[in-house]
Amino acid sequence: MNDIFAPARGHQSAEAKLNELKRRLLEISDLGSASAVLSWDQATYMPKGGAPARGRQGAILRKLAHERSVDPALGKLLDALEPYAAALPQDSDDACLIRVARRDFEKAIKLPPEFVARFNEHGSASYDAWIRARPANDFAAVLPFLEKTLDFSRDYAEFFAPYAHIADPMIDDADEGMTTAVIRALFSELHAELVPMVRAISEQPPANDACLRGTFDERAQLEFSRAVITQMGYDFERGRLDKTHHPFCTRFSTGDVRITTRVRENDLGDALFSTIHEAGHALYEQGVNSALDGTPLGCGASAGVHESQSRLWENTVARSLGFWKHFYPALQGAFPGQFKSVALETFYRTINKVERSLIRTDADEVTYNLHIMLRFELELKLLEGKLRAKDLPEAWRAAMQSDLGIAPPDDRNGCLQDVHWYAGTIGGAFQSYTIGNILSAQFHAAAVHAHPEIPREIENGKFSTLHAWLRDNIYRHGHKYPPNEIIKRATGGPMSMRPYLAYLQGKYGALYRLPPE
Amino acid sequence: MNDIFAPARGHQSAEAKLNELKRRLLEISDLGSASAVLSWDQATYMPKGGAPARGRQGAILRKLAHERSVDPALGKLLDALEPYAAALPQDSDDACLIRVARRDFEKAIKLPPEFVARFNEHGSASYDAWIRARPANDFAAVLPFLEKTLDFSRDYAEFFAPYAHIADPMIDDADEGMTTAVIRALFSELHAELVPMVRAISEQPPANDACLRGTFDERAQLEFSRAVITQMGYDFERGRLDKTHHPFCTRFSTGDVRITTRVRENDLGDALFSTIHEAGHALYEQGVNSALDGTPLGCGASAGVHESQSRLWENTVARSLGFWKHFYPALQGAFPGQFKSVALETFYRTINKVERSLIRTDADEVTYNLHIMLRFELELKLLEGKLRAKDLPEAWRAAMQSDLGIAPPDDRNGCLQDVHWYAGTIGGAFQSYTIGNILSAQFHAAAVHAHPEIPREIENGKFSTLHAWLRDNIYRHGHKYPPNEIIKRATGGPMSMRPYLAYLQGKYGALYRLPPE
Repeated sequence: MNDIFAPARGHQSAEAKLNELKRRLLEISDLGSASAVLSWDQATYMPKGGAPARGRQGAILRKLAHERSVDPALGKLLDALEPYAAALPQDSDDACLIRVARRDFEKAIKLPPEFVARFNEHGSASYDAWIRARPANDFAAVLPFLEKTLDFSRDYAEFFAPYAHIADPMIDDADEGMTTAVIRALFSELHAELVPMVRAISEQPPANDACLRGTFDERAQLEFSRAVITQMGYDFERGRLDKTHHPFCTRFSTGDVRITTRVRENDLGDALFSTIHEAGHALYEQGVNSALDGTPLGCGASAGVHESQSRLWENTVARSLGFWKHFYPALQGAFPGQFKSVALETFYRTINKVERSLIRTDADEVTYNLHIMLRFELELKLLEGKLRAKDLPEAWRAAMQSDLGIAPPDDRNGCLQDVHWYAGTIGGAFQSYTIGNILSAQFHAAAVHAHPEIPREIENGKFSTLHAWLRDNIYRHGHKYPPNEIIKRATGGPMSMRPYLAYLQGKYGALYRLPPE
Repeated sequence: MNDIFAPARGHQSAEAKLNELKRRLLEISDLGSASAVLSWDQATYMPKGGAPARGRQGAILRKLAHERSVDPALGKLLDALEPYAAALPQDSDDACLIRVARRDFEKAIKLPPEFVARFNEHGSASYDAWIRARPANDFAAVLPFLEKTLDFSRDYAEFFAPYAHIADPMIDDADEGMTTAVIRALFSELHAELVPMVRAISEQPPANDACLRGTFDERAQLEFSRAVITQMGYDFERGRLDKTHHPFCTRFSTGDVRITTRVRENDLGDALFSTIHEAGHALYEQGVNSALDGTPLGCGASAGVHESQSRLWENTVARSLGFWKHFYPALQGAFPGQFKSVALETFYRTINKVERSLIRTDADEVTYNLHIMLRFELELKLLEGKLRAKDLPEAWRAAMQSDLGIAPPDDRNGCLQDVHWYAGTIGGAFQSYTIGNILSAQFHAAAVHAHPEIPREIENGKFSTLHAWLRDNIYRHGHKYPPNEIIKRATGGPMSMRPYLAYLQGKYGALYRLPPE
């Protein structure tokens, strides 16, 4: 009798353990969300006087979440659940949950707490130094911090040894399963195409973007952006749009995914495309199956896959001619003074103006990747010991000159421009942006392949077919599958450069009348 | 040698313990503040879809704070600090901190965790039932909950036995050191004065408040309110004003004390006086010595003393003729259509209209106390067993008829109108409002006694002398002293009814040409 009932009892006990696992993960998730609410408030509405206490209040929540995420009892629970997970279908929610929770736990416990504390402390000091050094154009002031960050980054990687390349552990943090070797190969293919393309475009007369530079009433800008993203499918019953200095998307639950934007009265494109970009991230988060809420599966799959969605909506969709066939009359109605006498095609050329420039965040769709690949190569060289931190400004200028044909006159517009190396690790910080660009075209092509009517629908302001395809093939899965599996499930193959190159050549070849490949 | 150094070593160790105490209290305070940020967001900007997760996120923070506040290690620390505290000057920050922390701890550990859990669960269920029952006018639906709340309230009091009256423990929670006996005596004095005063006023022709009932642009209302409270001294660098359904004041630190208000386009008085009321609470919290921040001393002294400040600013100051001598021209400028042909004296009569009405929160300054005292007497009778919960509606109507000369036609406008008994204990819920009224006059009189120029200054829109007196005598001390000590320090004597009666008789005697006492 005992033997007969043993499996059932064993099963029951595994279910109790699974519930205990979910209870623990929910607590970690809720503490993380509470901390995210505090950060959102700090970036949107907090009065100046709230800053000192807010720093402390966020830190205690993060500390409590971290303590729970490395609790040995969590590890024991995961060990005990292994046989149960092995018996489940591999793509069931629970099997994926146990796999992802185990991965997170094992990564987290590899880092000694005192290392995490020292690195966080250094990160804050380095960030403070950078905040002062950037406007002062003072690379020397951040150099000692950068050198120490490089040491910390190498030590960080060492905790995850063995690895094929020293950057792999950091890349894996952001884009699980991607490696330096794979990304280098992809990027080198892209680099070989882009450098001549940018050169050829530069030889054309530049597009005139004067129509974007008038004076645009802030309220009218925000209203127009709200109308556009509502039509795209962003759900305001489960989100908000507010103003901040740096636009971002944040998630407190499937039911509360907020975005922020920045409005410049003299630049229509800034708020509009930033808002659409963040709405792309938000559509992803709002589309995650709500059954995964409060678990490590209840968010996007990786930094690169996430970026693919902001880029797909911002660039592939909202910088297309078809999109503006629908929205341009409304834009003309909202800002008649600026656009009444500007033809649709002129506007379309304007929002796709390609220009060799110094600042990554202002770069257009084509040159943007050159900015990223330059940073990616430099951080690999720093980690490999082939470039010393003190030689970074010079290496930056040389790479800019070689790739983009222009070089920054100072470090403020050069290697001091991005926060990433001054507030986190060196390595793993930049590749996700270009992975996102590559995947945006690959996912878009797969959606159009499945539903050839999508481009026509977009010309009529209808986004539901595209949105539903993305939700069914990407969004709803949340973090259930690693990026490479999501890509394979959605597109039938591995990450590929082809759709992205075809997209760029098709679009910019036509815009700039480039010779066909 | 050892003996000589022993006291110094003992002292050092006490200081280390004091730091450990402060560290623990800071963590409890930060968790409480984080939870307050979540509540503020929920009441102001959270989209509908965020509600389910937000409930959980707030609950985990409150649970973590509560666990820390009843940690036996905290009790041991407080025990160990007793001799150190005894040697400090009694009114030093540290001696007061240890006293208040010990009081909080001892109160908290008297309640068994399972009782707290059961009572909280019942409170939520009761609140949900009330939310549905009030609009449906369905007292029968909440009666079983109310009966259980009465049992819970008696059990609650029992944990703090012995007591002189069963309501004393609940009253002490809100207004430390106050007792049923003291409040009954005060209230009976006030009741004896108010009932005939309200009767006499009712025999006068009613004030015409038509000028408050036009249509008032929401933005203009908010702008006017902002301007008024800024001039009063509310610091927007350390606070904000936002819209909510129910106005409130909340504090995340001395540097971040926010208020909310509610705007009705057809009622000027609602937003204006609600905003000033909440700004009164906020001036108190913004005025607490910032050295007390993050400790149990870093907030107001008690519910009654807090209410004295909202009432002092709302009623004593902002419903005075002198206040409007200064602000009325600006109000006429902001709303010329409504006020251009209304004389200052008419406006002054209007905002001080006395009217026998059914709803506490809409009541004027004079009748308001009758609403409170009625509730106070009923909750004492319920606790004493002299009134059964099922007989509450009838007892309510009888008391309304006897005190105010009108009785509610239904329970929605009677004993179902306030949330207090349906979401917390019976007992301790209402007395603070009238204590606040009494103290508002007593503090105001003391300030004017010290600075007779205050009324003239207010006529010129200058609030700094009054504000500074309140800050120096009340605000800066935070929760250092119990209410009775604050009152004695600020006014030189115990809580007294005299200034409040003098204020009411002076102001309303003149307004309604009542015969002098």
